Amino acid sequence: MSAHPTSDLNDVVHQRHRLGILTIAAESKRVEFGYLKDALELTGGNLSRHITVLNDAGLVDIEKGYEGKRPKTWVAITDAGRTALAAEIAALRALLAKHDQ
Amino acid sequence: MSAHPTSDLNDVVHQRHRLGILTIAAESKRVEFGYLKDALELTGGNLSRHITVLNDAGLVDIEKGYEGKRPKTWVAITDAGRTALAAEIAALRALLAKHDQ
Repeated sequence: MSAHPTSDLNDVVHQRHRLGILTIAAESKRVEFGYLKDALELTGGNLSRHITVLNDAGLVDIEKGYEGKRPKTWVAITDAGRTALAAEIAALRALLAKHDQ
Repeated sequence: MSAHPTSDLNDVVHQRHRLGILTIAAESKRVEFGYLKDALELTGGNLSRHITVLNDAGLVDIEKGYEGKRPKTWVAITDAGRTALAAEIAALRALLAKHDQ
């Protein structure tokens, strides 16, 4: 029996908040922490934890700096992150195709 | 800002193995435990845990019985399970639409 499409999903990427972070990060060169927090309706602590998981897996880089005098954190998707997101999206398309049958 | 599509995903349904269980269960009236185990390439213990989460949430019913003399367990998706799966699939479609932009 060939593997079910859900076998191709990767928990690091599939978790819904991390999927949201990667989806938004993939839309631009880098995205600011506060923007992600608002867009995904997460607390700072929750967002931080998910960004750490993605960073540990090499899927995003974290950049710290200042905008004027205000400290800011940016998240940038890596090439590995784009590849992992593309694999997730392909697996989701295969899953939705099963639902369309 | 309107909520990101990943905000509409429900962790009970979105977790990849549970999404697989519900997808397969939705294809027929009921599905046998061993079939699910093979189709999703899960251990019996892991499959049991996920079925318990789905049962506790009212998304599947668990039926125990015999096929000949062999004890068997069947999993049947409930109406609430079909509704929850449909909501998940709709949220995934919205997410994929963002990726198509």
